[in-house]
Amino acid sequence: MEELVGLREGSSGNPVTLQELWGPCPRIRRRIRGGLEWLKQKLFRVGEDWYFLATGVLMALISYTMRNHLGLSRAGGAHKWLYREIGDSHLLRYLSWTVYPMALVSFSSGFSQSITPFSGGSGIPELKTILSGVVLEDYLDIKNFGAKVVGLTCTLASGSTIFLGKVGPFVHLSVMIAAYLGRVRTKTIGESENKSKQNEMLVAAAGGWALPQSLQRPFNGVLFSIEVMSSHFSVWDYWRGFFAATCGAFMFRLLAVFNSEQETITSLFKTSFRVDVPFDLPEIFFFVALGAICGVLSCAYLFCQRNFLIFVKTNPLTSKLLATSKPLYSALAALVLASITYPPGVGRFMASRLSMKQHLDTLFDNNSWALITRNSSPPWPAEPDPQNLWFEWYHPRFTIFGTLAFFLVMKFWMLILATTIPMPAGYFMPIFIFGAAVGRLIGEALSVAFPEGIVAGGVTNPIMPGGYALAGAAAFSGAVTHTISTALLAFELTGQIVHALPVLMAVLAANAIAQSCQPSFYDGTIIVKKLPYLPWIRGRKIRRHRSGVLGKHLARASFSTGSQPAALGRGTPLLTQEIALTFSLSACPESQILVGTVRRAHLLQALQAEPPSWAPGHQHYLQDILAGGCPMEPVTLQLSPETSLHEAHNLFELLNLQSLFVTSRGRAVGTVSWVELKKAISNVTNPPAPK
Amino acid sequence: MEELVGLREGSSGNPVTLQELWGPCPRIRRRIRGGLEWLKQKLFRVGEDWYFLATGVLMALISYTMRNHLGLSRAGGAHKWLYREIGDSHLLRYLSWTVYPMALVSFSSGFSQSITPFSGGSGIPELKTILSGVVLEDYLDIKNFGAKVVGLTCTLASGSTIFLGKVGPFVHLSVMIAAYLGRVRTKTIGESENKSKQNEMLVAAAGGWALPQSLQRPFNGVLFSIEVMSSHFSVWDYWRGFFAATCGAFMFRLLAVFNSEQETITSLFKTSFRVDVPFDLPEIFFFVALGAICGVLSCAYLFCQRNFLIFVKTNPLTSKLLATSKPLYSALAALVLASITYPPGVGRFMASRLSMKQHLDTLFDNNSWALITRNSSPPWPAEPDPQNLWFEWYHPRFTIFGTLAFFLVMKFWMLILATTIPMPAGYFMPIFIFGAAVGRLIGEALSVAFPEGIVAGGVTNPIMPGGYALAGAAAFSGAVTHTISTALLAFELTGQIVHALPVLMAVLAANAIAQSCQPSFYDGTIIVKKLPYLPWIRGRKIRRHRSGVLGKHLARASFSTGSQPAALGRGTPLLTQEIALTFSLSACPESQILVGTVRRAHLLQALQAEPPSWAPGHQHYLQDILAGGCPMEPVTLQLSPETSLHEAHNLFELLNLQSLFVTSRGRAVGTVSWVELKKAISNVTNPPAPK
Repeated sequence: MEELVGLREGSSGNPVTLQELWGPCPRIRRRIRGGLEWLKQKLFRVGEDWYFLATGVLMALISYTMRNHLGLSRAGGAHKWLYREIGDSHLLRYLSWTVYPMALVSFSSGFSQSITPFSGGSGIPELKTILSGVVLEDYLDIKNFGAKVVGLTCTLASGSTIFLGKVGPFVHLSVMIAAYLGRVRTKTIGESENKSKQNEMLVAAAGGWALPQSLQRPFNGVLFSIEVMSSHFSVWDYWRGFFAATCGAFMFRLLAVFNSEQETITSLFKTSFRVDVPFDLPEIFFFVALGAICGVLSCAYLFCQRNFLIFVKTNPLTSKLLATSKPLYSALAALVLASITYPPGVGRFMASRLSMKQHLDTLFDNNSWALITRNSSPPWPAEPDPQNLWFEWYHPRFTIFGTLAFFLVMKFWMLILATTIPMPAGYFMPIFIFGAAVGRLIGEALSVAFPEGIVAGGVTNPIMPGGYALAGAAAFSGAVTHTISTALLAFELTGQIVHALPVLMAVLAANAIAQSCQPSFYDGTIIVKKLPYLPWIRGRKIRRHRSGVLGKHLARASFSTGSQPAALGRGTPLLTQEIALTFSLSACPESQILVGTVRRAHLLQALQAEPPSWAPGHQHYLQDILAGGCPMEPVTLQLSPETSLHEAHNLFELLNLQSLFVTSRGRAVGTVSWVELKKAISNVTNPPAPK
Repeated sequence: MEELVGLREGSSGNPVTLQELWGPCPRIRRRIRGGLEWLKQKLFRVGEDWYFLATGVLMALISYTMRNHLGLSRAGGAHKWLYREIGDSHLLRYLSWTVYPMALVSFSSGFSQSITPFSGGSGIPELKTILSGVVLEDYLDIKNFGAKVVGLTCTLASGSTIFLGKVGPFVHLSVMIAAYLGRVRTKTIGESENKSKQNEMLVAAAGGWALPQSLQRPFNGVLFSIEVMSSHFSVWDYWRGFFAATCGAFMFRLLAVFNSEQETITSLFKTSFRVDVPFDLPEIFFFVALGAICGVLSCAYLFCQRNFLIFVKTNPLTSKLLATSKPLYSALAALVLASITYPPGVGRFMASRLSMKQHLDTLFDNNSWALITRNSSPPWPAEPDPQNLWFEWYHPRFTIFGTLAFFLVMKFWMLILATTIPMPAGYFMPIFIFGAAVGRLIGEALSVAFPEGIVAGGVTNPIMPGGYALAGAAAFSGAVTHTISTALLAFELTGQIVHALPVLMAVLAANAIAQSCQPSFYDGTIIVKKLPYLPWIRGRKIRRHRSGVLGKHLARASFSTGSQPAALGRGTPLLTQEIALTFSLSACPESQILVGTVRRAHLLQALQAEPPSWAPGHQHYLQDILAGGCPMEPVTLQLSPETSLHEAHNLFELLNLQSLFVTSRGRAVGTVSWVELKKAISNVTNPPAPK
């Protein structure tokens, strides 16, 4: 009885009684505690490499759970089932087709936005900003995790009506897990790790987990994330990315076998191109032309997308709607999208009864639809025929070309509209499918133009529109994201790498056009969202400029006050400034020699704890402050005003820096940070028009 | 008559008459000259990107010419033909088998060494050193080009007897072309380009041209070169590498079609693994075990290879032989190698009648040889059967296992011996084949252990030894070179990517073992050849060290005298020192503030052109020297003694630096270069044993 009372007392704040509760055997207690401590130390000291394994395995579990148990495979089916079973009334069918995704989408955006405003979108632009050294508070907090998972599940359940993917949010989820594991480890070991280690974790986690999680393809996932996320990367991070990706893919495979599924490892879209001569030389020019078309289209898409985003943000009506009631905006957008894809309406001309996976599956088909349907014209089936899913792309009145062209025109603006919905969603897969449709259209046209195939070197090679669809998908998605590893994704999807050369040439042509005209999809979002970023320097342009020197640009405009002489009277502007975390301390106020930095908190503490001997108006010099026990940190890297902008840019990108000191002959003449560098670069590359 | 005389005079040194020769039409002359000038400017100003295209196309031409016109495909055949046709006399056959490669190898090493001593070996270790910022004089000179091409042709013509490849020398050749083009361009434009641009060219050329040239596989070529060559790389270089690789592959294809060959683009080794279920889960463990075995074997190989190289260099007999008569050493080594592979002798147990391409072709075979030969035992054929080349691997007395094991044991030391021959040769392909044999052996053993296949989830999956050979080749070559993109090579060779997961897991397991035990093949050669290099920091180790700070290590040992106070009397040690190219100038000798650097040549000039007013013993201060017209260059980047070793290492690797100044409170306290940094790192990671 007494012990129980002690327990209650203990729980109300007195831990001594709790210890007495187990009093009888102190030795065992000590041993258990020692063992636990040892285990903890062992577990969290094994080196950060094993965290990538943990991240990989966790992400595989989450992905698998989302797919199989949160009903992703069933929720989409439920929509189709509801639509099928509801009877012949057009009103009821229309309502069932539109209300279902509207409800899901508005719930998704409402739920995720109520928890955290960061959870919308793909998350990749924000990650890109974080990886380049900027701290976005709370963005990697684990509490966003639930919001993102629930929101993403709803988005995916709404299926091909809304036409959004899951790649970006998965990257965000895995980075959140990696950051969380890193924080747990840091806390447990009690070490004060430096920032760069966290950044390494981020790179590796993102590298390992971009696509593999949704497509189980390790190669493309790693390379794609590296291309999207950073401008420089180390081979060591690349290895760790592969490690995480392989562990995750293995885990996913294990779960699949455990549930006796067979399809996850073999290629997702079983295409069998002929292996002996997959293409011939004259066709290469068609492939390059296809790449160029995809490049031009991607420029148009990027331009429209960015400007529509800006329009939605600035237009009084939509901006008010987005600010006050996001679910309503989402529901309205979903209503528009669902109404257009309604199958008995316009939807029948754009294969809207197929899921996104089926879209890809049919577009990569081996046969030429145009040649098959040239003589026989099958009627539009009431239900999709599981054996010949591609019939969905055919309409007797419009033919294959009509439906494909209509699909492209409509999806162009529907995709742009869908990206404005504030909910967790990936934008890569829709773009990939759009590109596949572009390639298919051109491939079909070529197969009609050359029905007998192309003769080269005495051998006749029939044209395979599926190969063009593959190249188009890789080229368009590569141009929109400014990457070329999408070609590898195309091979990993089909399980055959024989098309390597033509696909790679199409991707390169598309990239050459897109990169010279428009910022990438992710960079565009960064610009629209006004996140901090460094403009991309091509190397050649800025080196030619004689004015590309740090000093000229910075001395004029923007030396922050953090580096002013160190005669610190209390209450000077230095201390009231919120941003400056460090103060450069100079040896004596006259010479302004840079000695080191002092943290704001420490400095305040030192000033408050001043000895009473100081007069209130006393000027505080370096010696006084350091004698007061204020810890000083050394400055390990200094630039000079003669450093070229290109060099400074490289340093900031390579080392993920926040700011650097600029000294001239030892004297601190200023600091340079992101903001100043960005301004200087844009001054050099886009000189202001003379007035 | 007079004009002719004028011409003769002109050619003997008087250019005026030559101009007079074309005198009549000065306007056309001027126009032509102007047009040529314009063309030159246009051609050489297009930006360096087009140089990668030129490099790619040139390398494709060279590769194609070497293969088809320098008789590579025929010279190997000539050896086989000679051996076949020479009759039944054993002595004659033996002589024909051994003398042919001996002559080629000794000519190859003699010829290439007589032109330049750098042309031996694969060239990749030297390139690695150059890319990290060290200047190796003359190594990229175009005059090495001919030596390398002729030597490599001879090496390849000697075929599978010597068992060497061509990957490394091709990388070296393409980098030579890129460097040459860069120099031509710099000269023509007249711009003084900075070093980093050349480095970019090197990375891109090496990236683009490692493997594609010999195997026409762009993906693996780019990634493999990046992994081998550098520890950090930029996405921009990666794109340019792909650009060059694709252009070259296209060019090669064009030439192949022009000569009506069909096989270059489709997969080199036509393997058709079943696509539906390529492997099952229990097999993954066998794959990982295979990877671990390959890792252990690669450690043994690397250890033996490095130590044998050192032995050959230090042993009085061999070192004297190598110093005085390299052709003799090469001939002796070739004699040993050819005698062992003599087919009627021991060679019959190691499939020595097959070429290297046929080795790979047979090892990746789909069927299980052990199961086929279990009941029927075909006799050893007198000639290789073109339909069933794999019979070469079978000997009635030894069975498949005996020949494979014998092949592995013998090739292990034969490969090591072959790498000591001082001639241009690549060492990647032999290692790849060795790994394939390891995988095949284990695959055959498994297929005997599970003749019915492995049952999992109700489905029986027969074991395919070809898949194990693929994984073994990727794992062993990946472990020896410390790369993981060899997995991609395996897929590009077979044209199928369905084995992605098991092959990648085997490669990761092998790499984990090899990287923790031994330096890579190329790093080992760098160590043996005593080339400058920075040790690899794993990140974790050195950060924990409290002593990992620049100042502690450098202040003690090795501040170079280049940064001594600037009171420069004439004839001080500063000027006699050969290495120091720059001198730090301090504002006044008391404060030693770092102001800038002065080139040695300029300084000498300024001192020689001193005004006569100076007394001979006069002390030359900064103001005097600068007033004398000596140009000063600013110091753009400074470290401090508190900079951590890890940070300094990163900077040197990222920026390809030669040396940096270290300042403390503005005062120059020293410089840090490669040598000091290397010493400091080895002091921290391997602390000297306490005495």
